[in-house]
Amino acid sequence: MRATVIYGAGDVRVENVPDAALREPTDALVRVLRSCICGSDLWPYGKRPATGTPDRIGHEFLGVVEEAGSDVSGLKAGDVVVAPFVWSDGTCDFCREGLQTSCRHGGNWGRDGVDGGQGEAVRVPQAQGTLVKLPVGEDSALLPSLLTLSDVFPTGYHCAVTAGVDARTTVTVIGDGAVGLSAVLAARRLGAERIILMGRHKDRTDLGREFGATDVVAERGEEGIAKVRELTGGDGTHAVLECVGLRPAIETAFGVVRDGGTVSRVGAPQYPDVPAGFGVFRRNITLTGGVAPARAYIETLLPDILEGTIQPGRVFDRTVALDDVPAGYRAMADRQALKVLIEP
Amino acid sequence: MRATVIYGAGDVRVENVPDAALREPTDALVRVLRSCICGSDLWPYGKRPATGTPDRIGHEFLGVVEEAGSDVSGLKAGDVVVAPFVWSDGTCDFCREGLQTSCRHGGNWGRDGVDGGQGEAVRVPQAQGTLVKLPVGEDSALLPSLLTLSDVFPTGYHCAVTAGVDARTTVTVIGDGAVGLSAVLAARRLGAERIILMGRHKDRTDLGREFGATDVVAERGEEGIAKVRELTGGDGTHAVLECVGLRPAIETAFGVVRDGGTVSRVGAPQYPDVPAGFGVFRRNITLTGGVAPARAYIETLLPDILEGTIQPGRVFDRTVALDDVPAGYRAMADRQALKVLIEP
Repeated sequence: MRATVIYGAGDVRVENVPDAALREPTDALVRVLRSCICGSDLWPYGKRPATGTPDRIGHEFLGVVEEAGSDVSGLKAGDVVVAPFVWSDGTCDFCREGLQTSCRHGGNWGRDGVDGGQGEAVRVPQAQGTLVKLPVGEDSALLPSLLTLSDVFPTGYHCAVTAGVDARTTVTVIGDGAVGLSAVLAARRLGAERIILMGRHKDRTDLGREFGATDVVAERGEEGIAKVRELTGGDGTHAVLECVGLRPAIETAFGVVRDGGTVSRVGAPQYPDVPAGFGVFRRNITLTGGVAPARAYIETLLPDILEGTIQPGRVFDRTVALDDVPAGYRAMADRQALKVLIEP
Repeated sequence: MRATVIYGAGDVRVENVPDAALREPTDALVRVLRSCICGSDLWPYGKRPATGTPDRIGHEFLGVVEEAGSDVSGLKAGDVVVAPFVWSDGTCDFCREGLQTSCRHGGNWGRDGVDGGQGEAVRVPQAQGTLVKLPVGEDSALLPSLLTLSDVFPTGYHCAVTAGVDARTTVTVIGDGAVGLSAVLAARRLGAERIILMGRHKDRTDLGREFGATDVVAERGEEGIAKVRELTGGDGTHAVLECVGLRPAIETAFGVVRDGGTVSRVGAPQYPDVPAGFGVFRRNITLTGGVAPARAYIETLLPDILEGTIQPGRVFDRTVALDDVPAGYRAMADRQALKVLIEP
């Protein structure tokens, strides 16, 4: 079958790989209907050392069950399913607590003999715990929004939930990428009435406004902090959703959070240390968030998408065929595209 | 009157200073019955640059109201009161939210013309918001435990509360100083049944056991982390109460916390950055805590002390007269004393 592999920075290819096939009775075989490129795929795309040995890549997909192992119940051939970006057994203590990213028998796509999501098909380990059946057909117009349940939308939602966003909290979202925009949508869904979006790409912040942002701050650094403080009577906001992962973003987060407030981060940190010394301590700021357990949120978010109340799939602004995935990476890396959908 | 001042590292003196007296109608004048030395007083004692101009010092005291300003209601001469370690108006939005340490009209003892706590008397700004009346006499045997309400016990309590400690959480307390022991007592009061105390001074950890610690780990660093993990099936504990404030302590905290768990810190950080990069992010660890709004907890904790259910004053293991305060600092700095009580 065809699947995406990465050889090094800037070197993504679509190649022939061994066909996905069941190995364990807990596996399912899923033919991919839609997958996509994640902002986090851009980290290895930006800096992976070049080696002769490629890695499989891609961790967001939905598809059709072709075959289910003998230990998998509740799923059968023909079911349309979405996979969260980490696979998990659904039964261990962490999974029962809603922290499937720490599952005792789980793992990541594209590693240790498990297929990546950007290909024609995927062997899904722990299929019963991992996959969620979607009540739609293969040709549903909702597929893009349903695909966001694999990662980007629950990641934004995790950010807002862990930050304690509700109708009484003011919110700053840092980053106008697909995760930031998802965080805006999530904060609005949780009832926030004041949502300040920090971002400087007008086409993206325009979508952010449609998702619920009430203010947009294009300035960065100290200037951006001053602007958010000016918008909030000098105080900053109760919740800050850091959706970038770079040191300047987390510095800004502590600059715009109100005393006693919470910074939640879901952008994978590209820094070893957090600037949270005495100044942050004195103000009783909480730092939370982390890798989103997308699986924990899918059932909660699914009805809104099925009913059309929210359309998180609007973050996709480009669609490529599987063989054109390398062009999709380039477009995202060059910020020509916000988020790229793949139709194998 | 006599009061404690600090000239520089290692140089604390008791000197004559201007008598405390009312200045604002919101002030009260309090004659000090008991005060004490805080672990955080040891930071300037350890490193304050020597200058010819001393600072007043001390922020924990209880005493008797001698006179109340015309805008102060509910307090009268003769009332025994305790003061939290930050003064606050009790009416601003932060105070109403229980974050009196960020009060819009509050401040610190010993600064900007406000008396320090380690003296004969204190002018208390915003007295109505700051002081809490205690239903005891000047000679009550409960005074030491009641004095802990000014800082050390609510600080431990804040640590446990913000960490989300309850009957279902396992807890590690890092540090066997007075705050760490208070955190043990607080965690036990909140229902924790498994409390691992990390500390290596046997007399202190023995008191920790009496306060509720179920296990003591004397090892530090990687060895200490391994020991806590061994005690918890490899996982670490849900809550970690970091009561030291040094970089190795916060590193240990992240090492012993369970995935999805919370590190709360109340030891004033003596480090600029927190080692909370991708590894902490991947495990969804929350970092919380901060300067404890002691005022917010006094009414909650007072009944237990009055009833004798808890005796947080047991952290005092030495008592000095006001003129002997310099010896008290030396004893604490040399770890000859856990916490020193002052009887002016």
